[in-house]
Amino acid sequence: MRGARERQAQLVKPAGALGRLEELAIWLAGVTGSARPSVRARVVVAAADHGVAEERVSAFPQAVTRQMLAVFLAGRGAVSALARETDASLVVVDAGVAGEGMEGVRSTGLRPSRNLAREAALTAGEVALAVDAGRSLAAQAAADGITVLVGGEMGIANTTPATCLAAALTGRPAADLVGPGTGVDAAGLERKREVVQRALALHRDGLGGPLGALRRVGGGELAVLCGLALGAGEHGLGFVCDGVIATAGAAVAAALEPALLPRLLAGHRSPEPAHGALLEHLGLDPVLDLGMRLGEGSGATAALAILRLAAAAHDTMATFADAGVAGRG
Amino acid sequence: MRGARERQAQLVKPAGALGRLEELAIWLAGVTGSARPSVRARVVVAAADHGVAEERVSAFPQAVTRQMLAVFLAGRGAVSALARETDASLVVVDAGVAGEGMEGVRSTGLRPSRNLAREAALTAGEVALAVDAGRSLAAQAAADGITVLVGGEMGIANTTPATCLAAALTGRPAADLVGPGTGVDAAGLERKREVVQRALALHRDGLGGPLGALRRVGGGELAVLCGLALGAGEHGLGFVCDGVIATAGAAVAAALEPALLPRLLAGHRSPEPAHGALLEHLGLDPVLDLGMRLGEGSGATAALAILRLAAAAHDTMATFADAGVAGRG
Repeated sequence: MRGARERQAQLVKPAGALGRLEELAIWLAGVTGSARPSVRARVVVAAADHGVAEERVSAFPQAVTRQMLAVFLAGRGAVSALARETDASLVVVDAGVAGEGMEGVRSTGLRPSRNLAREAALTAGEVALAVDAGRSLAAQAAADGITVLVGGEMGIANTTPATCLAAALTGRPAADLVGPGTGVDAAGLERKREVVQRALALHRDGLGGPLGALRRVGGGELAVLCGLALGAGEHGLGFVCDGVIATAGAAVAAALEPALLPRLLAGHRSPEPAHGALLEHLGLDPVLDLGMRLGEGSGATAALAILRLAAAAHDTMATFADAGVAGRG
Repeated sequence: MRGARERQAQLVKPAGALGRLEELAIWLAGVTGSARPSVRARVVVAAADHGVAEERVSAFPQAVTRQMLAVFLAGRGAVSALARETDASLVVVDAGVAGEGMEGVRSTGLRPSRNLAREAALTAGEVALAVDAGRSLAAQAAADGITVLVGGEMGIANTTPATCLAAALTGRPAADLVGPGTGVDAAGLERKREVVQRALALHRDGLGGPLGALRRVGGGELAVLCGLALGAGEHGLGFVCDGVIATAGAAVAAALEPALLPRLLAGHRSPEPAHGALLEHLGLDPVLDLGMRLGEGSGATAALAILRLAAAAHDTMATFADAGVAGRG
């Protein structure tokens, strides 16, 4: 980072004039340990179904989780398009999707998460399995030469567990954190608020730390994303958080391993209130604010485009000295 | 635009979930007249020197204007790196740079703009020459199949004329609009404020409409950028405004030809107060806010990366129908 900062100070521009692009280049230098770092990115989309969908907290039927995986595999989802355009590879992981395994999707052996409004979403064994799957994906990425991971997700009803986790991790009142997700109506939003509050009341005495919260009010994709973020720390990668679900997974990881924090980057500010609370809790300021609220890793993948610009300017601009340009008068 | 809006409503995502990316795709459809539009971009950097530099309103010596053109031609400026990364061509125009013509730079025959604190910056003939040069560049871009132009600039001291123009066009008090540009110190900022107020007082009775303001308190690159924006309107192109200078040039064009407004896009929010005033005046909301304050077209070129993402998602995503994905429950 010191080398990157020194280089930025020598590039042919007034000091600081590239703003966030300079900070991103320096962040990437810290992540990679190189003063002239490259973006080699992979988007990991962890997908799961959730028993809590039966409480009618989502605008879409549960079958959509599985249907969307097929769209991603065909290269025709939003995240597929954005990953292609930003030259990132895309890996889809089944972290408990209802139905049979799908060709082209990494399996983990997880079944759909249970209804957290009635019981714990996962068993302790499932949490361990999911976190290990995430860590293995990070290890594989590092072996493949990747420098930056994007955490994405797909799972009908999954803003409900993510909001529960945000409340548990930040200590903020759950009622203030509930948002419309992919777009429930007013009655759905009221139901969702009631379900989140009921779940937190049910599990209040048994949360027992970040992993306990992940087990009781989390879900399969949240646990895989937690493991992926932990693995980014273990293998020297950057981790770009997407919206409320991916950021909740990363926040559990950061609670378990605070040294991970400098490797986290917030890609895009989601309009979900729980996302704002998590960003503040983690001290992260998103690169983009484009009103996106899709998930899939789409906001963080869009931010990769800006990270690529930052790395390109950092790497290819001339210095004042080698260009023979005069400094300040 | 209607066709693009209909397509967005059918893509496999909740309505509106791609936020600004959806709006950008629809904007590009309006610009190109195609419901499945492509980004084919060119960055035009108009460069000029300014007599007002002798008032010591810039942190850098005047020689830097010319030196930076050599950096751009060598592909080693910030805008060179960003244009390369966003697959945009780069054209550099001499709109009155001190010294001999330079190979690889389009000439216009303009000489450096005069010190607007003492006399009119340009003659009426120079304004016509510069505006025509900008319009010709837009015509050439259209002939080359370009769909989107980025207006950029280079010119030591040029935030001073741009701030004068912003005051003249918006009617806001000049003292509120003066900012540090590439980074003058407190004493320099005070001098700059005094120079802007002196210039506006000198020309107060002779401004006589947007072209008069451009002549008296503008400059060569501002007039070329005004012509480039007018040409974008005449030839059916989009025009992405960069910081305070390029946006001031576009604002003169929009004052002359209000039908141009829907073709303007603000790429990046500059910290210069005059830029905020111009954006509000034009009703534009920038795509990015990354604290960049370099000019060159760098902020608008960074926004091209997001525009490309918008077009890619719009063009390659599946619809609910062709993917067999269920709609709202």
